[in-house]
Amino acid sequence: MADDPHALARPLVRPIRTAELLAIGTELTVGETVDTNSGELARSLVTHGVQVLRVANLPDDLAVVVEALRTALARADLVVTTGGLGPTPDDLTREAVAAACGEEVVIDEPTLEWLRDLWARRRQPFPEVNAKQAWRIPSATLLPNPNGTAPGWYVDRPDGRAIVTLPGPPREMRPMWADEALPRLASRGVGGDSVVRTFRLTGIGESVVAERLGDEPLRSPNPSVATYARHEAVDVRISTGPADGRTAAEVADEAEALVLAAVGEHVWARGDTTWAAALEEALGTRGWTLATTERGTDGALVTLLRALPSVVRAERLPADQPEPMAGAGGEAGQERPGSSQRPELSEAARVRREAGADVGLAIRARPGGDDTVVHVAVVTPDGSHAERRTAFLRGSQGADRAAIAGASALLAVLRGGRDA
Amino acid sequence: MADDPHALARPLVRPIRTAELLAIGTELTVGETVDTNSGELARSLVTHGVQVLRVANLPDDLAVVVEALRTALARADLVVTTGGLGPTPDDLTREAVAAACGEEVVIDEPTLEWLRDLWARRRQPFPEVNAKQAWRIPSATLLPNPNGTAPGWYVDRPDGRAIVTLPGPPREMRPMWADEALPRLASRGVGGDSVVRTFRLTGIGESVVAERLGDEPLRSPNPSVATYARHEAVDVRISTGPADGRTAAEVADEAEALVLAAVGEHVWARGDTTWAAALEEALGTRGWTLATTERGTDGALVTLLRALPSVVRAERLPADQPEPMAGAGGEAGQERPGSSQRPELSEAARVRREAGADVGLAIRARPGGDDTVVHVAVVTPDGSHAERRTAFLRGSQGADRAAIAGASALLAVLRGGRDA
Repeated sequence: MADDPHALARPLVRPIRTAELLAIGTELTVGETVDTNSGELARSLVTHGVQVLRVANLPDDLAVVVEALRTALARADLVVTTGGLGPTPDDLTREAVAAACGEEVVIDEPTLEWLRDLWARRRQPFPEVNAKQAWRIPSATLLPNPNGTAPGWYVDRPDGRAIVTLPGPPREMRPMWADEALPRLASRGVGGDSVVRTFRLTGIGESVVAERLGDEPLRSPNPSVATYARHEAVDVRISTGPADGRTAAEVADEAEALVLAAVGEHVWARGDTTWAAALEEALGTRGWTLATTERGTDGALVTLLRALPSVVRAERLPADQPEPMAGAGGEAGQERPGSSQRPELSEAARVRREAGADVGLAIRARPGGDDTVVHVAVVTPDGSHAERRTAFLRGSQGADRAAIAGASALLAVLRGGRDA
Repeated sequence: MADDPHALARPLVRPIRTAELLAIGTELTVGETVDTNSGELARSLVTHGVQVLRVANLPDDLAVVVEALRTALARADLVVTTGGLGPTPDDLTREAVAAACGEEVVIDEPTLEWLRDLWARRRQPFPEVNAKQAWRIPSATLLPNPNGTAPGWYVDRPDGRAIVTLPGPPREMRPMWADEALPRLASRGVGGDSVVRTFRLTGIGESVVAERLGDEPLRSPNPSVATYARHEAVDVRISTGPADGRTAAEVADEAEALVLAAVGEHVWARGDTTWAAALEEALGTRGWTLATTERGTDGALVTLLRALPSVVRAERLPADQPEPMAGAGGEAGQERPGSSQRPELSEAARVRREAGADVGLAIRARPGGDDTVVHVAVVTPDGSHAERRTAFLRGSQGADRAAIAGASALLAVLRGGRDA
């Protein structure tokens, strides 16, 4: 066998470690449709230990798709396409795969019968253009589509690589991938041992996170540690495989210890937890309801906490006048005794009282130079807490960060990290 | 000059007819983030008559990005990158463009000063990793970023092609593209004769729109008419080029007449106008302020109208109990005389009065079967208006559609289409 010249070129099993994704359709390259399929497939592949090398969106252009298939097949163990399986002349994924594989399409008779039957059941004449949905190449296995009329293809290449073609509509793509394609890939060996963990940080900028972590972990491929400045948080994401006899989980545990030592005090959640979810859990454990009021943030706090069922009342009020040079004392005449320096405390107490809620949260944001000055107050059955923060930038970005400052202060109070 | 061997290789102006888009970041290829930037850029380029050949999502891998840049530059007149401009070691778009162009990066001193000043303003030490955000190559012009810390690059290649690098966060990418990159491209000649017009519809489903328009316009390549079911509206998009001696605008005029004859009564805006923008214009012409209150929509109306400066107060209140079989009469005891059948009218009047606003808008949404029943009331200085609608689906989708029903009723009243 070792002397068989085809032995290396035709292994029975080539483990699938890498993949490229091709989303096909001019609606993608003119920006009329967003490709969500590739992200879903990427997440699925990553959890199965397969590295996605590239994602491409391609127009309905045969030459472009054939070239992209060939290039991807030269790099990756697996190529997954989405889209271009419809019946119209511009649906040309089948033609492209056939050309890239050097095969001719044939009609799959059982599929053609099934298609004709679909139309017969609806008592409609069968448009002959649909016959192309029954095409396959000899090396392809058809993947049934219970949610549409276009079967997918599973193609084993002679060199052990694989091609999977899936329909574009997510409701057809998703079950075909999970129920038909993945099991076939798994049966021939897909991916390896891998772990992904994400930590969500607040009160710290991405560059400071990077500095504290140091260059080495951020450059290492395994464990891979990456930082992402997102809308709601700076995320630190650890992704690992096995190394030096340790499992991916063991490698991840070491990386996690390093991350937590560097920035652990800023971690407010893990995974893809939102502020609403974190607060709902913290409020839910005490059975508390929440009322919020905000000034100068155009409803950013309502938007941030929209998915939080414990909110019994939320108010968007107009901005205050710009902060006076001497502090907030100038408003004392409008405030109740004892709160003249903390109008946000009065507002938190008022909205809590008016709504009959257990917790009141107030934020008051004002431009302060190029940034946003935000006063936050939290009133709970256990006491009250107020603080002043500077949120980076003004306008809607400053408002979003001011809302996060409010959510962050509330979460800290609820978790016992701050007096209230 | 014609004999100059460099004459062809170095045209002063190469018209930009084709583009490729590279979105850079491992968060995209692992499916942690969806690339919405490329779609936005594609739409903008198409409206400027530039054809997008391909879109790629690439990992933070220097070799991969350099290869992709070189390949794209061999095919397209313009390459636009998004992402990879952050301060961390895995942000390597600058390094990749430098390598693809065969140039060395230098520090841009004014930008470094500006960055140091940003940190000084916040009284924080400057993390030296940020210095790479002040990098540029000699052939690059820096594109200012008023919404973040990463400037973009505009690079003129010797062969007349161009590279634009933009930050990944959409709120930084968008203005930099519109205000900095596009004007530079326009000044050197971009695209050809083409027209794109979009009509935004409400109160009609996408399939009914398609049926009314008929097959022929939806299949024609020029004028191209396409329908898109979006979050805020069903959009009908006309895209044209010149044909048979007529200009793109003349072709578009004919298609527009056809579209308006079929579905004109459902058009509430054009282009990418949002509900907030349409309402701001309608309120602004009268100098009116708005107060809103909503029940059962988890703040969907606050979120929809967030960018509307005329809002002086917005409330999110808890959901009502499920609608009683006999209508809303059961709540009469809580309502003022005369409004027992219309609690939403009382709420609109109350929030208007409490906020001292010119206009009050109330929506009350409740599950009704698989859909959402929404009662809308509008109270203005000229009178009041109430209506009941059914919004498709329940949960957050039903809530979003209920909020749109409210915005739609308000806009109709303000435009004089309904009594108020």
